[in-house]
Amino acid sequence: MPRLLTLLTDFGDRDVYVGVMKGTIAQVNPQISIVDLTHAIPTQDLWAARFNLLNAFPYFPPGTVHLAVVDPGVGSDRRGVAIQIADCFLVGPDNGIFSGILATAPVQAAIVLTNSRYWRTPSPSNTFHGRDIFAPVAAHLANQVPLIEFGSEVDPTTLVTLNLPDPQRNDCSLIGYIQHWDHFGNLITTIPNLWLPNASWQVSVGNHLIPSGRIYSDAAPGNLIALPGSHGWLEIAINCGHAQSLLKMEVGDQLQVTWG
Amino acid sequence: MPRLLTLLTDFGDRDVYVGVMKGTIAQVNPQISIVDLTHAIPTQDLWAARFNLLNAFPYFPPGTVHLAVVDPGVGSDRRGVAIQIADCFLVGPDNGIFSGILATAPVQAAIVLTNSRYWRTPSPSNTFHGRDIFAPVAAHLANQVPLIEFGSEVDPTTLVTLNLPDPQRNDCSLIGYIQHWDHFGNLITTIPNLWLPNASWQVSVGNHLIPSGRIYSDAAPGNLIALPGSHGWLEIAINCGHAQSLLKMEVGDQLQVTWG
Amino acid sequence: MPRLLTLLTDFGDRDVYVGVMKGTIAQVNPQISIVDLTHAIPTQDLWAARFNLLNAFPYFPPGTVHLAVVDPGVGSDRRGVAIQIADCFLVGPDNGIFSGILATAPVQAAIVLTNSRYWRTPSPSNTFHGRDIFAPVAAHLANQVPLIEFGSEVDPTTLVTLNLPDPQRNDCSLIGYIQHWDHFGNLITTIPNLWLPNASWQVSVGNHLIPSGRIYSDAAPGNLIALPGSHGWLEIAINCGHAQSLLKMEVGDQLQVTWG
Repeated sequence: MPRLLTLLTDFGDRDVYVGVMKGTIAQVNPQISIVDLTHAIPTQDLWAARFNLLNAFPYFPPGTVHLAVVDPGVGSDRRGVAIQIADCFLVGPDNGIFSGILATAPVQAAIVLTNSRYWRTPSPSNTFHGRDIFAPVAAHLANQVPLIEFGSEVDPTTLVTLNLPDPQRNDCSLIGYIQHWDHFGNLITTIPNLWLPNASWQVSVGNHLIPSGRIYSDAAPGNLIALPGSHGWLEIAINCGHAQSLLKMEVGDQLQVTWG
Repeated sequence: MPRLLTLLTDFGDRDVYVGVMKGTIAQVNPQISIVDLTHAIPTQDLWAARFNLLNAFPYFPPGTVHLAVVDPGVGSDRRGVAIQIADCFLVGPDNGIFSGILATAPVQAAIVLTNSRYWRTPSPSNTFHGRDIFAPVAAHLANQVPLIEFGSEVDPTTLVTLNLPDPQRNDCSLIGYIQHWDHFGNLITTIPNLWLPNASWQVSVGNHLIPSGRIYSDAAPGNLIALPGSHGWLEIAINCGHAQSLLKMEVGDQLQVTWG
Repeated sequence: MPRLLTLLTDFGDRDVYVGVMKGTIAQVNPQISIVDLTHAIPTQDLWAARFNLLNAFPYFPPGTVHLAVVDPGVGSDRRGVAIQIADCFLVGPDNGIFSGILATAPVQAAIVLTNSRYWRTPSPSNTFHGRDIFAPVAAHLANQVPLIEFGSEVDPTTLVTLNLPDPQRNDCSLIGYIQHWDHFGNLITTIPNLWLPNASWQVSVGNHLIPSGRIYSDAAPGNLIALPGSHGWLEIAINCGHAQSLLKMEVGDQLQVTWG
């Protein structure tokens, strides 16, 4: 049985770019199962791609191939890579989109995609490596072709990274950063749930002082609440509302948790 | 072969929440086939979820597992349930989203999901039961685990319901309600096609008197038309247009069919 | 193993129309693999459907069944067809959506769908042939039922066509037309990449004179660029921007390439 393959892009849903990648995969092996992570990454938003990959990664079986194409540098000299980590595989451009995952475990191997035998064509287009290089490589990888076949091994420390500052932990406060806001308008921070104190605490962000809770409905409808989120980090929400529409935060904006 | 599994949520398409549920399902059995019904239910809109589930249900094979997560009460004391009806299965929160389907046939069994052995973790998050409870339960059910294994049987009459008033049928008129408007702006009512007279009839709604037809193009482009819809109910449309943008109806708004 | 099946519609993502078609297909054979091309064709936009089908077609394996439902004339006397071309199959309304593909190769056979034995019901609805006729026919075709079983053979020259004027090639200029703009705002023309000269060239469109390049980042961020596109035609883009928002072109608008 081939390996499971996931797909994340910024291609949106109105064109056939994603369908064409799936056709290319089916040409290699029509039995490969594909799970769409999302194709609604804002155009060329490497931060959103990084966040979504990091958060999907732990929920897939060992051996899964994660193919991600958010690729503003397509056709330039940015490298294409295939990486083995935690018994899974990552395929896509070397531009930082995988750096969230790469920080969670040691890289087992990293390959620069130079072997055109596994591409759709030895003369790939300059604007759609997702179709011409990444999809066929990911399909052959799902088909159990050994990683080393796809090109030359490189030092994992040379992979491009894209990271926020580490959160900080003091005696009576925590400092962290906004790393994403989701479909529901919930803001996900970089502060681990495990750092939150047992005692009552609150979040300062901009001019807002936000009380803590356990579930969204611990706040009255329309009110802000901070709570341990399902991603594993402190999250800021409005019960029955859209926190980001009120707070208008950017990725990297700072917040503070205080107590006592 | 595992049972077919469908998925309906209000998670939208810009995050990996749906992908994470599919990863969790693949961890149970990567061979399970999943059909997305829709993930664009407006946030927490139980009426839209109820309508869409009711309308998809009849078109799937016996044994299909329908997993639905529109769950404003996640983490509160609302129950999680698995229900057998018409030789299919429903898995999700007990908040009324299944009540359209439940009105169409007798419930064969209803189970409250208390057996954490079939959850992703015995300590589920408070905010994402879709991932931690419902997806793994639905996957095990697709995998032929007997329904009774997932928890304790409950009286089906205790399941939460969400229903519009019944439509009414008089000598020369019918009264019904708007129950949904779709992507094309077509308004679907609660009046069964089978109740419509053979003679010419019309619909009164707000200040509009709408003529009847058989197909959309029976009206001139831009004109309102009422016709027997493909869902099995009277539908109001504009040929080459968007009726809801003109009529601005709400779920539950009343309309009348008259003739003679 | 059944044939691969692709699906393209203008049904959007907020209803269960696509899911219902997939349920209908699963009733014929739950083992059929389905690839979504797109369901975000603008409502009843036959040009966008035609373009997207044409561009997806070459990337799928021989034997693939392409099911497409953009069908403003549903329920009228427009024909339903199944067509064999280049060892693949096309199923949908005879309204021009397949005419891009039909211009690329000779039709092997064209059938009008009259045999109701392969429909979901002998009494199909007037408004949803996608569910009642096209999806079950496509599923039986994926299931290896011979094409001739679905109805009567017709002369391929009677199939409805929808085509832009051919591009023109002169000594020092090319004339072509806008045929599509995509999710990224890139404008795809009808001028083949193969016609572009080796020497430096530029594009005139409206009041704009646009320089040529090889990749998007050959232009400074925010600047217009014309380049050989991944679809095989000249494309107009803005590096890190949305060319259509600036140029506001329509399908069929003319442009000129000059050099020397």
